[in-house]
Amino acid sequence: MVITDSLVDFLIETRKQTEAICSPLEIEDYVVQPIEDVSPPKWHLGHTTWFFEEFILKVFQDDYQVYDEDFSFIFNSYYETVGERVIRADRGNLSRPSVSKIYSYREHVDNHLKALLEKVDSDDLFEILEIGIHHEKQHQELLLTDIKYILGNNPIFPKYSDFYQENEIEVTEKEWISVEENVYSIGHKTNEFCFDNELSRHKVFLHDFQISNRLVTNKDYTEFIESGGYDNFKLWHAEGWDWVKQNQIKSPLYWHKIHGKWYQYTLKGLHPVDMDAPVSHISYFEAFAYAQFKNCRLPTEFEWEVAQQHFSWGQRWEWTESAYLPYPNYKKAEGALGEYNGKFMVNQKVLRGSSIATPIKHSRPTYRNFFHPHLRWQFTGIRLAK
Amino acid sequence: MVITDSLVDFLIETRKQTEAICSPLEIEDYVVQPIEDVSPPKWHLGHTTWFFEEFILKVFQDDYQVYDEDFSFIFNSYYETVGERVIRADRGNLSRPSVSKIYSYREHVDNHLKALLEKVDSDDLFEILEIGIHHEKQHQELLLTDIKYILGNNPIFPKYSDFYQENEIEVTEKEWISVEENVYSIGHKTNEFCFDNELSRHKVFLHDFQISNRLVTNKDYTEFIESGGYDNFKLWHAEGWDWVKQNQIKSPLYWHKIHGKWYQYTLKGLHPVDMDAPVSHISYFEAFAYAQFKNCRLPTEFEWEVAQQHFSWGQRWEWTESAYLPYPNYKKAEGALGEYNGKFMVNQKVLRGSSIATPIKHSRPTYRNFFHPHLRWQFTGIRLAK
Amino acid sequence: MVITDSLVDFLIETRKQTEAICSPLEIEDYVVQPIEDVSPPKWHLGHTTWFFEEFILKVFQDDYQVYDEDFSFIFNSYYETVGERVIRADRGNLSRPSVSKIYSYREHVDNHLKALLEKVDSDDLFEILEIGIHHEKQHQELLLTDIKYILGNNPIFPKYSDFYQENEIEVTEKEWISVEENVYSIGHKTNEFCFDNELSRHKVFLHDFQISNRLVTNKDYTEFIESGGYDNFKLWHAEGWDWVKQNQIKSPLYWHKIHGKWYQYTLKGLHPVDMDAPVSHISYFEAFAYAQFKNCRLPTEFEWEVAQQHFSWGQRWEWTESAYLPYPNYKKAEGALGEYNGKFMVNQKVLRGSSIATPIKHSRPTYRNFFHPHLRWQFTGIRLAK
Amino acid sequence: MVITDSLVDFLIETRKQTEAICSPLEIEDYVVQPIEDVSPPKWHLGHTTWFFEEFILKVFQDDYQVYDEDFSFIFNSYYETVGERVIRADRGNLSRPSVSKIYSYREHVDNHLKALLEKVDSDDLFEILEIGIHHEKQHQELLLTDIKYILGNNPIFPKYSDFYQENEIEVTEKEWISVEENVYSIGHKTNEFCFDNELSRHKVFLHDFQISNRLVTNKDYTEFIESGGYDNFKLWHAEGWDWVKQNQIKSPLYWHKIHGKWYQYTLKGLHPVDMDAPVSHISYFEAFAYAQFKNCRLPTEFEWEVAQQHFSWGQRWEWTESAYLPYPNYKKAEGALGEYNGKFMVNQKVLRGSSIATPIKHSRPTYRNFFHPHLRWQFTGIRLAK
Repeated sequence: MVITDSLVDFLIETRKQTEAICSPLEIEDYVVQPIEDVSPPKWHLGHTTWFFEEFILKVFQDDYQVYDEDFSFIFNSYYETVGERVIRADRGNLSRPSVSKIYSYREHVDNHLKALLEKVDSDDLFEILEIGIHHEKQHQELLLTDIKYILGNNPIFPKYSDFYQENEIEVTEKEWISVEENVYSIGHKTNEFCFDNELSRHKVFLHDFQISNRLVTNKDYTEFIESGGYDNFKLWHAEGWDWVKQNQIKSPLYWHKIHGKWYQYTLKGLHPVDMDAPVSHISYFEAFAYAQFKNCRLPTEFEWEVAQQHFSWGQRWEWTESAYLPYPNYKKAEGALGEYNGKFMVNQKVLRGSSIATPIKHSRPTYRNFFHPHLRWQFTGIRLAK
Repeated sequence: MVITDSLVDFLIETRKQTEAICSPLEIEDYVVQPIEDVSPPKWHLGHTTWFFEEFILKVFQDDYQVYDEDFSFIFNSYYETVGERVIRADRGNLSRPSVSKIYSYREHVDNHLKALLEKVDSDDLFEILEIGIHHEKQHQELLLTDIKYILGNNPIFPKYSDFYQENEIEVTEKEWISVEENVYSIGHKTNEFCFDNELSRHKVFLHDFQISNRLVTNKDYTEFIESGGYDNFKLWHAEGWDWVKQNQIKSPLYWHKIHGKWYQYTLKGLHPVDMDAPVSHISYFEAFAYAQFKNCRLPTEFEWEVAQQHFSWGQRWEWTESAYLPYPNYKKAEGALGEYNGKFMVNQKVLRGSSIATPIKHSRPTYRNFFHPHLRWQFTGIRLAK
Repeated sequence: MVITDSLVDFLIETRKQTEAICSPLEIEDYVVQPIEDVSPPKWHLGHTTWFFEEFILKVFQDDYQVYDEDFSFIFNSYYETVGERVIRADRGNLSRPSVSKIYSYREHVDNHLKALLEKVDSDDLFEILEIGIHHEKQHQELLLTDIKYILGNNPIFPKYSDFYQENEIEVTEKEWISVEENVYSIGHKTNEFCFDNELSRHKVFLHDFQISNRLVTNKDYTEFIESGGYDNFKLWHAEGWDWVKQNQIKSPLYWHKIHGKWYQYTLKGLHPVDMDAPVSHISYFEAFAYAQFKNCRLPTEFEWEVAQQHFSWGQRWEWTESAYLPYPNYKKAEGALGEYNGKFMVNQKVLRGSSIATPIKHSRPTYRNFFHPHLRWQFTGIRLAK
Repeated sequence: MVITDSLVDFLIETRKQTEAICSPLEIEDYVVQPIEDVSPPKWHLGHTTWFFEEFILKVFQDDYQVYDEDFSFIFNSYYETVGERVIRADRGNLSRPSVSKIYSYREHVDNHLKALLEKVDSDDLFEILEIGIHHEKQHQELLLTDIKYILGNNPIFPKYSDFYQENEIEVTEKEWISVEENVYSIGHKTNEFCFDNELSRHKVFLHDFQISNRLVTNKDYTEFIESGGYDNFKLWHAEGWDWVKQNQIKSPLYWHKIHGKWYQYTLKGLHPVDMDAPVSHISYFEAFAYAQFKNCRLPTEFEWEVAQQHFSWGQRWEWTESAYLPYPNYKKAEGALGEYNGKFMVNQKVLRGSSIATPIKHSRPTYRNFFHPHLRWQFTGIRLAK
């Protein structure tokens, strides 16, 4: 394998895009961590950079001097192999290193990477570089959703920017797509990049099923709310019901009832809910309860993958009924990168598709996203099956 | 359907067996609840009785007077449909009703049931009666494991009885059983009783796999401990690793290292670990880590069901890799009984087989047990696959 | 000092009285611990006995064989000096040793004590014996209040007995007693027994003050409730207000509003609140807020001690404004008994007087009781000062 | 009363000093809240300004337009009277309003205050102005200690500045000062400003006592550490011992043992502990345990006030044995300012003196500071009595 210019371009373009996402922020917005699941933007900037320094520069550039020894400690995330790390819940307590120092760190690592790529021709390097780029794209999506959480939970509700269209309306007529029972092949098959959890490609038997060509809208979901969906335990899992009661959940995240009318915080600020747009920011528990309410169910991830060519997708990550588990003959990578996916394969639900926050070149029919069933800060949605 | 004598006999035999399990107890043992997952034995005695009173006597015997109005409140478990209930964690705070009053309650309900069954011939009644009997059998298993927890966490380590053989040794030679890839049918198929979660029978594609004909032994597991298995994060799920660290887990439940030697609390008291017996009282997290340590994996519940005729089982509930999810075309029952299984189908793992605590007529190849991945107080074990 | 018959009699009478308090209980009532502050009755029975075994029999009877080695572990309370102990919150998980075994333990220790007292004449022994008796009397009071908590938090509200008159009415006319400013002497002065925290007798300067000759009644307190006292933060300490909000406190402990009318659980069962009786089971936070509501204050413990001869007391432990602190020249005892009082002298409030649960020969004007400001399960009351 | 120029000057000088304290900070340092007790610097800047806007501009300037309605919500602290407020623990989640916007707010309010003071002559205004200035001075001290906590808990240990001399050494020879028993007068008596909790001046009887002329040094305290002071429960209150065990406390806050040597984070960065300097950042629990270790005790606040003229003080806030309670005839202020002190008078300990972080004109012999007994982030110290 010879490194193509396109990989270098891909790197540069990706690195720039991360910074572009941050461009509307005030310095203060880079720092805070309102809940443990949300990381401060400065941490994302540093962590994605640390990944390249740790797994490429320190490995492939012999005389490489680390930018700052402390950064390994601060920007390491979950890679237990690589030594101690700052407890996740403490990320928002780190006022230093400053944002400007982190931008210098990014520049330093980018420059070294570019220089290295001009002289080294190593398949191992290219493979990790590609993972690093896709790793950064994953963080771009988290970065945007974390920014939304930071601003959307501020009592002032600051606007982020007008760039993202969160609420595009699906105009095709709603219908059920039928798929016949058969043995289907599931998993990644092209030569393009994929994560380890999309492999190996394998066979699954599916019974007849139907799946909606449209996402559930805010209007649909409002009907659930107004029919007392949040007060009817019969629609919920036992754990979902406990979650609703303990957190007094009464609507999707970012919804506020003001003088009897529903408002929604979007990246453009606080505005009335657009009833025709797809519902977003609901947990798996809510998606499941909504499906029960409609006498339907959520599709499995296999059903979704088989049917996805028959409908358009990409606005919302779509909750599936599938638990996040390894495919048959799943092999996790050696070394620290082996911690990437496999160790999360318990107590999480698979989401399929992608969202308006997903970076370009980062969605494909076999991509498996996963979150705990109570989480809502991603741009999640509902597609029904039966 | 005409009620057969055998169903009445089955009822009486089951009701007696519950009381037989309690016969070695002191009154004080019936009362305590050391952790939320463990219910006091008196609660099991009352709750299984309440089930018959609530769903049979109150429904099918027109002039039925409830034994005590308070008991509906106290012995209701998770049936939100049927009204308020005592919070699960408070069950151990109820010194009243006394144990003797609960035995009177049992006698009262038994007598009414017998009288009713002599005169009423109703398929609906028989169906619920059968569920009630199997419900009580499920509680018999919990009763025994809860008793073990209550006595086994007492610093005096009181003996329960010599009746149960927890540590029978498998003497067949260890070997891998091979199963070929194919579409297999999964789920209950006979006319005998089964729970709703074993239906509907459906097809699953399985790739080639191998499964051990033997359970992992205490000796095998000791090797894992002594090789630092509990200190090697690479073997664990991220959540498993957090669980190990937070709870300082260093061995299976009920193991104690005394003067350098492993002891184990069994129903017969505290004794040296029998190294040739199957390991027990391990969580899914531990089962998974052990499998990683051996470069193997746990079987899925489908693999287990297909292969089970080729090995003997019944000593340990066996953790599978499968998440507890509904089968295709799963229908939950109407009314309060609909809460029985479906609402637990998130964040739990399936166990297959049965254990030395399982009552007779209560195990079958399609039975699906389920627990959260950190729980250990059941007689759980490990069977490897690859 | 020669041991008088009266000390032996005092011992025997005290030991019997503890058992008399338990006589109305079912076996099950001895076992439970609904909250950490409440100990199971069987624990009180064992712990008071262990005290005599540990500090007298093991010390003064040379060949003494302990009744059961495990009991030192189980019935030790807070005496860190004497070795490991069962965590307080776990006392309710110990079904064994059984109640009958604990009664045998009591008999064994009593017999040894009596035999020892016939032959040994030691001032050291007599001194510890006297402490042991008074220690058991303290536990008699806790035993009764713990029993009330156990039964009063059972949804069935079982009656304990008709013996105790919780709600005797004060019939004297209400008036303010005036005390003039002066230097007063505070602390124990007679030759009778007292605890170390009542010493040394010392001087305190008091400014002019007035103190009520009557306790606040349920009627008085109902006025506070109905005027919105629990909703008016201005009346409360910041910590008191947090406590009210977090625990949704709306009335004294054991009060229940049923069909618009106040009921109160007493040792005689659930009955309408007797409006003329002194209010009981209120926290210091509530006592303080009530005093603010009346534009008064609580007396200091010094004011109370100086004024107490001018009013009758003994129904309710009375909250004072004083923090529990050592008197000038306070000396804590040597050895394990030194842990008795001094180590609790932070974050607690002094209560003066005694209550209907206080054993005979266990109240005196200098007695200092103390609890955390949020606790309510004692028979506490309010006397105003200004 | 005519407003003197000096009061305006005092205001301006105080407002400037708050900003001077922040001058060494990066923007990011203004935002974070590592623990609930520590507020972000930007919050202090806004809150002290809000106080003047809320209690002066909104009251005394008829046509006053509030700078931003949201700020009342965000910068209100504990004044329940004035409406809803951001939960204390969430202060560190507010990236907006930005630091620069808060500085604009300060300027706006300062300008309005100056204009108002030129035309209004009102004793009520001057009284609240004076409280506002002293309120801001209190926050200056908290601001500095909070900054130390924010930087000192950053793994990079950034230096704040060289300005403050935390570790000045007391060179006078150590001796015991004796005070004779008598009735003494306690509390504020001059015409200068004081807080309500320093009144009313009243009489207290003190027995003979001795008090050290010197603070305990780091060397003294190291002796306590090395003699196993943190492992000897006999020296501790029960709650102190629990605190030590739960938090694994082994040294004062900001001490780190690196390669066998003690280092201490100060505002100048991480440096070896200066053994001759007074110990700092210890809790009341530690101060008490140290005194027990030396067979001494802590002085009461009354002893301290009477003796203070005989020794120099001002480096460390000194823990006393006294609980924070109202003086006889204490009157809390009307309205929202009444919440200032009285509502904290439970479960806290009095500290006397002042510290190197105390602003000028903000210390006096009658000043009563108060904190919960486990807190350590202030510049606290120990002076022994006996």
